[in-house]
Amino acid sequence: MTDRAAGPGRLLVRDLAQLATPSGSGAPLRSPALGEVDVLEDAYLLAEDGLIVEVGRMADLGSVDGEVEEIDGHGMSAIPGLVDCHTHACFAGDRVAEFTLRAGGASYEDLHSAGSGILATVGATRAAGEAGLTEAVRRHRGWMLRSGTTTFEAKSGYGLDRETELASLRAIEQEGGIPTWLGAHAVPPEFDDAGAYLDFAIEDVLPEAARLAEAADVFLERGAFGAGQARRYLEACRDAGLKLRLHGDQFTESGAVPLAIEIGARSVDHLEATGDDGIRALAASDVVGVLLPASALFLARPMPPARALVDAGAAVALATDFNPGSAFCESLPLVCSLACTQLRLTPSEALSACTINAASVLGRADRKGRLAPGYEADIVLLDASDWRYLAYHLGGSVVAAVVQGGRVTWRR
Amino acid sequence: MTDRAAGPGRLLVRDLAQLATPSGSGAPLRSPALGEVDVLEDAYLLAEDGLIVEVGRMADLGSVDGEVEEIDGHGMSAIPGLVDCHTHACFAGDRVAEFTLRAGGASYEDLHSAGSGILATVGATRAAGEAGLTEAVRRHRGWMLRSGTTTFEAKSGYGLDRETELASLRAIEQEGGIPTWLGAHAVPPEFDDAGAYLDFAIEDVLPEAARLAEAADVFLERGAFGAGQARRYLEACRDAGLKLRLHGDQFTESGAVPLAIEIGARSVDHLEATGDDGIRALAASDVVGVLLPASALFLARPMPPARALVDAGAAVALATDFNPGSAFCESLPLVCSLACTQLRLTPSEALSACTINAASVLGRADRKGRLAPGYEADIVLLDASDWRYLAYHLGGSVVAAVVQGGRVTWRR
Repeated sequence: MTDRAAGPGRLLVRDLAQLATPSGSGAPLRSPALGEVDVLEDAYLLAEDGLIVEVGRMADLGSVDGEVEEIDGHGMSAIPGLVDCHTHACFAGDRVAEFTLRAGGASYEDLHSAGSGILATVGATRAAGEAGLTEAVRRHRGWMLRSGTTTFEAKSGYGLDRETELASLRAIEQEGGIPTWLGAHAVPPEFDDAGAYLDFAIEDVLPEAARLAEAADVFLERGAFGAGQARRYLEACRDAGLKLRLHGDQFTESGAVPLAIEIGARSVDHLEATGDDGIRALAASDVVGVLLPASALFLARPMPPARALVDAGAAVALATDFNPGSAFCESLPLVCSLACTQLRLTPSEALSACTINAASVLGRADRKGRLAPGYEADIVLLDASDWRYLAYHLGGSVVAAVVQGGRVTWRR
Repeated sequence: MTDRAAGPGRLLVRDLAQLATPSGSGAPLRSPALGEVDVLEDAYLLAEDGLIVEVGRMADLGSVDGEVEEIDGHGMSAIPGLVDCHTHACFAGDRVAEFTLRAGGASYEDLHSAGSGILATVGATRAAGEAGLTEAVRRHRGWMLRSGTTTFEAKSGYGLDRETELASLRAIEQEGGIPTWLGAHAVPPEFDDAGAYLDFAIEDVLPEAARLAEAADVFLERGAFGAGQARRYLEACRDAGLKLRLHGDQFTESGAVPLAIEIGARSVDHLEATGDDGIRALAASDVVGVLLPASALFLARPMPPARALVDAGAAVALATDFNPGSAFCESLPLVCSLACTQLRLTPSEALSACTINAASVLGRADRKGRLAPGYEADIVLLDASDWRYLAYHLGGSVVAAVVQGGRVTWRR
C-alpha cells in the first residue's frame, strides 16, 4: 500500500451556483471561441490526486464513496485558477516616491531617463540578496493568491548582473513561479552602451540562466533595446533552448511584432502603440498578444487596441505586469474589470484571456486554465452566484477561496 | 461607579511605521492645504471612550496605566477611517447582464433609455421589502468596511414610491449609514412625466423623508430632471429642513453648478462634463465638488477636471458612487489610485479628499476625517510602512485592520 497521507486526496466542491470554464479544447483561443464560456448551474467538481476528474450538475452527481474533502459552494461560483503570464514579481524596494512625483506631473519616461525608474529598483534588488529576494517573491505570491492567481510567471531583470539575475530566477522557482530571464530589461549603470551589456549578458549569464528559466524576454523600446539588439539577444537565447517573449510597442511601435513573428516567440506583450499593420500581422501569426491594461492605467497611457486585435482574429492573453514602477497591481480580477470597461472585451473573453490563453503563453494549456477532466485542480471560488462578478465587481474582494492542485491554499 | 464594560475603553496603537493625517484644522480643505498631510514616523495613537486623546512619536509615549487594548503597528501605517460621501448602497439585484452588454458595445445612456439602467434596479428594489433592503445594506457595508470605509453616506432613489423610498432611508440608518433622500433619481414607470412625479414626491414622500434623511439629492441630467425641476425639488427639501446635494454635469453640463451655488448646496457631484466657467464658479463658492472617478472608469467616460478644480481653489472630495449600474465599486483605496493616476491628484490630496473633505460634505468634519485629539477614533491600518500605498498599491488589499469608535471592527 502506498502512503497517501501526503497527497491531496479527493476534493468535492458541491452546490455551486455556477461553474464557468473556457469551452472547447486546444489553445490559444481566438474569437469567437475566445468568448465562449461553458456555464453549468447548480454544479459540482470532483478532483482526485490533484487533477479534476468530473464536473457536472448536482442532479448528476453519483455517490462519492470513501474519504473526500467537501466544500460547500452555495452562493458561490467557480472559475479556473487565474494564470498571470506576465509579472515582474522579483524585486526589492518600491517606487512610491516616483508614483507621487508622477501624480504631480512627471512622465514615466522622464523619470526613467533621469535614473529613477527601473534603475532605482535595480539598486534595491541587487542589495537584497537571494534570501531577501526569495522573501519578496513569497510576499508577492501571497498577494497574488488572495486575488485568485494560482499560476504565475515572473521575470528577472532587476539584477542585470550575473549574481542577481541568477538569484532572481532561483527565487522565482523556489516560490513556485515560472521563471523568465529578462536579461535585456535595461542597461545597467556599469555599462556604457546596450551592445556591450548584451555581450556580457549573452556570454556570462545566459549559459546558467538557460538552465534556470523557461523563457527569455527583452524590453524592445526607445531608451532600452532596439530591434537589432533584441534579435541578437533572442537568437542567442533560442539557441540555448529558451522559449522567447518580447515587451513591445509599449510607448512606440519599434518592430517588436514582426520580430516576434519571425523569430517564433510565444508572445509579444504590451502593444499599446500597435497600429493596424501590426494587428493584422499578429492575427495571422501564432504569437499571442499579451495585454496589460493595469499598466496603461497606472501610467495613464492609451489602452492597447484589444477589440481590434480580437476582432482581427489574434490570440490574446491578459496579465497584470505586476511591478513596482509601472503597474503596482497583482490583481487579475481588476485586470478583468479593466478589460471589460477599457478594452471592450466581454467577461467571457476576459476569462479565457487570463486562464487558458495565459496558460498557453506559459506552455501549460494542456493542464492549466480549464475546469475539465484531466486538468489540474486549480480553482477560484468567487463570492458571487454569477461568475461575471469577477469583472463586474470593480476593485471588490470577490475571491472567497482558492484551490491549487486539489488543496485549499487560501480562504477569506 | 459607572459600568464601563460596554464602552470601548482605551485603545493604544503603538509602533506604527507611519501615522498620516490631513493637517491643520477646519474644513473643507482647498489647495495648498488639501495636499498637506502630517506624517509622524514611529508613532502611536491613544483613544479613550471612542475618541482620540493623543497621537505622537513612540519616544514621547508616557506610561499608559490601567486597562488598555494594544495593537502592534509594526510595519503598518495608520490613516483616518475613510469617509465615503456618495454611495447608492441601498439596492437589490445587480446589473451584471447590463455590464456584459455594455462591454459588448452598448452605451450607458442607450441602456438607460431602453428601460434597462436605473429602472431595472427600481424593480428589484421595490420587490425586496424592507428586510431585504436592510440585509443588502448590511452586506454592502461589510464590503466597504473591508476596504477601510468607516463612515458612509447612502442614498435612496431606487424605490421612487413612498413605501420603498422610506424603507430605504430606514434601512440605511439601521445599518449605520448617513441617509440621503434621492427622491429625484429617475421618473418611475407609473408616472408619465417628471413634473407629475415631483408633485407626488414633494407632497407625499418629502414630509416623512425629511424626518429620516439628513440631505436631499437630485439627478440633474438629460433624460432625468432639468434645472428648473431640480430647483423646485431642492427648494422644497430645503424648506423641510434637509441639506442639499446635486448630481450634476455627469454627461452634459446642465446648470447644476450655478444652481448648487445659488441654492447653498453642500456639494455638487460628478462634474465629468464641467467646463472652465463651472470650475471658476465652483472654486469661488462654498460648494464642495465630489469627484467619482470609479464611475467614469466603469462607464469608460472622460474623467472630471480634478486638477483644474484643485488648482483653481475648489474644495473637492472623492467618493466611490457605489451602485449596481455605473460604479459597482465600494473601494475608496481604488478611488485613491484612480485619483493619482487619472485625476492628477497627489496621494496627499487624495487622502484629504476622502477623509476630512468627505466628512465636511456630510457635516461631520468636526469629528471625523482626522487623526487628532478630539476626533472619533476611526482608523485604518494599512499593511504597508508607507501610507501612500493606499493609492500606490492599485487593486491591492492594503487594509490590514479597521477601528471604529475605538473598537477593532475588521481585521484581515
